[in-house]
Amino acid sequence: MHDRRADRGPDVLTRPDVAIVGAGPVGLAIAWRCASRGLRVTVYDPAPGSGASHVAAGMLSPVAEAYFGEQELTGLLAESAARWPRFAADLAEASGADVGYRADGTLVVGLTADDLAEARRLWSYQQGLGLPITPLRPSELRDREPALAPRVRGGAVAPGDHQVDPRRLVAALRAAAERAGAVLRPSRVGALSELDARVTVVAAGCGAAALTGLPVRPVKGQVLRLRAPGRGAADFRHVIRGYADGESIYLVPRDSGEVVVGATVEERADTEVTAGGVLRLLRAAVDLVPGLAEYDLVEATAGLRPGTPDNAPLIGPLPGRPGVLVATGHHRHGIVLTPVTADLVTELIVTGEPDPLLAPFTPDRFGKEPRWN
Amino acid sequence: MHDRRADRGPDVLTRPDVAIVGAGPVGLAIAWRCASRGLRVTVYDPAPGSGASHVAAGMLSPVAEAYFGEQELTGLLAESAARWPRFAADLAEASGADVGYRADGTLVVGLTADDLAEARRLWSYQQGLGLPITPLRPSELRDREPALAPRVRGGAVAPGDHQVDPRRLVAALRAAAERAGAVLRPSRVGALSELDARVTVVAAGCGAAALTGLPVRPVKGQVLRLRAPGRGAADFRHVIRGYADGESIYLVPRDSGEVVVGATVEERADTEVTAGGVLRLLRAAVDLVPGLAEYDLVEATAGLRPGTPDNAPLIGPLPGRPGVLVATGHHRHGIVLTPVTADLVTELIVTGEPDPLLAPFTPDRFGKEPRWN
Repeated sequence: MHDRRADRGPDVLTRPDVAIVGAGPVGLAIAWRCASRGLRVTVYDPAPGSGASHVAAGMLSPVAEAYFGEQELTGLLAESAARWPRFAADLAEASGADVGYRADGTLVVGLTADDLAEARRLWSYQQGLGLPITPLRPSELRDREPALAPRVRGGAVAPGDHQVDPRRLVAALRAAAERAGAVLRPSRVGALSELDARVTVVAAGCGAAALTGLPVRPVKGQVLRLRAPGRGAADFRHVIRGYADGESIYLVPRDSGEVVVGATVEERADTEVTAGGVLRLLRAAVDLVPGLAEYDLVEATAGLRPGTPDNAPLIGPLPGRPGVLVATGHHRHGIVLTPVTADLVTELIVTGEPDPLLAPFTPDRFGKEPRWN
Repeated sequence: MHDRRADRGPDVLTRPDVAIVGAGPVGLAIAWRCASRGLRVTVYDPAPGSGASHVAAGMLSPVAEAYFGEQELTGLLAESAARWPRFAADLAEASGADVGYRADGTLVVGLTADDLAEARRLWSYQQGLGLPITPLRPSELRDREPALAPRVRGGAVAPGDHQVDPRRLVAALRAAAERAGAVLRPSRVGALSELDARVTVVAAGCGAAALTGLPVRPVKGQVLRLRAPGRGAADFRHVIRGYADGESIYLVPRDSGEVVVGATVEERADTEVTAGGVLRLLRAAVDLVPGLAEYDLVEATAGLRPGTPDNAPLIGPLPGRPGVLVATGHHRHGIVLTPVTADLVTELIVTGEPDPLLAPFTPDRFGKEPRWN
């Protein structure tokens, strides 16, 4: 038993200070940060790391993910991405494990003239916000990545958009949380009333809807994992975000030779891999980087992102339920938002005061009838 | 111990009459037929049914597989296909298992004008041989299979080209062989000298090259298995063999809702599934039958066909090795050729006289230096 506090009552040996539902990156990072502050933490999850993070590519893309009408989310993405290098270093020290943080930057490219126009429309908006993204001539693109197809019409570079490996992230966070004294229980929580803790944090991804009534809905994504032939490294270094005949995909190369190709965005709750989904991803990938045709196809999976009505996360007190906090709805941004979410939730638990950064993301922003239909 | 013969010598309890290397469809069918004739049979295979048959689609296509310059092979395909209905019925009775024999016929279709010209060139040749294949107008094609894409330019029907399920075939043959008294040993044969039997039959697929020195080489094929959504039946009944933008593929619908999509033909010996291979198969499949985009992709595998210099099998005595027979090199035709191969090899073992049908397929036809390079 782990105990750093002297002023506890009779429940000191059994009642945690913080009960966390969900052992994905967000739940585990909160557990690690809270346990490191001396709080007694228990995390409940029958299958840690089996949710959206298992399928996620791990792009840290505050710039390339800055979309029209999402300024507040864009600000939070930038804030969290800025925290990532320090977070990764702390985590490596605390866990003894590496999370595959790579700072090779991201190329945004368009295959056809129409695709390039679509890409340029977005990066012009991002430039207008003052974000670091710079257009490149086709020859400059190919100088940076000779693996790109000759017919790619143009693109831009976002040097500050990096990546980590989400599966290694979960393993490292789990090790760090347990080393700091957090306890993982492999049990499913059917209702918040089953838990007894000073503070409960719902970090259950799509499972948060049933536990809280908040408007979190599953958004299906199909993702492929390729492997360079002969198990060498991939023959490109940047993350590549491409538009190809109207399809928007990303290619994330890892040091191991793995290349993640994603992702469909489907308003469905099943996790079947479909012929059409795989076809769309492979066609766009091979059109953008022809050499990928020779790669082994080693995994095709589908996962469910926790989406919200405005695509932004739900972080803060659950309305009408004192002692319950929420940290979910991270949709396509769970990996990049892990550091800032963990920091802000931990501060809120320790001090009782919400950071002003949280104001746009409070769970009560969708009114009194939050259930999604 | 199984023993139906009265005149055996002192080795009667241990020495088999027939030792068979390889428990694929050909080896198991020979085992079943020989054991049914009262011979003592042992089959050696560390992984029965794990070779080419595990990946095979199971088309019984004597007509659509009749290619230019392969008249003798075409004759053997037709002979074996004619034996299939009786073979399937015998096997069902002997094994108690069903092999999924379906007689819905095969459609040959072309997506573009060029594809149709390619298909027509072949079926005109097949018609010239007197084989049963009949051109259809596009409207007639779609009346038969409304699932075909509207842009399919035309095609033909081969009503006598049927199908079975190769995995169910292996299971049934294994049961039938064992019920008839054959013994399966899960051991790998490294050299024919390890075996002691009156007759040895090498039915080891690609493995025959190392055991015999015959010119059998691996020809890689990548194959997908899709499943109709909701686990219903596929929405087409015919086997569809299509040409789509220069790609030649087949679609084989099963009663279970499974659809087999195949196959690449690659002069390689690895069994990796590649991004390019899957892309080619899915693109052609969805172009021909758009509804397949909604099917689940449940399996992507690669196998090795035992190819020979003239694409025809090697069936008969191994030159210079009395007492050794060969039944391999069936390439893309192992399933359709299983009945005739088993019948002719069994007759040869029992009577010592080769059937004239075997003359074009003797293993010595490639001369004195048979090893493939």
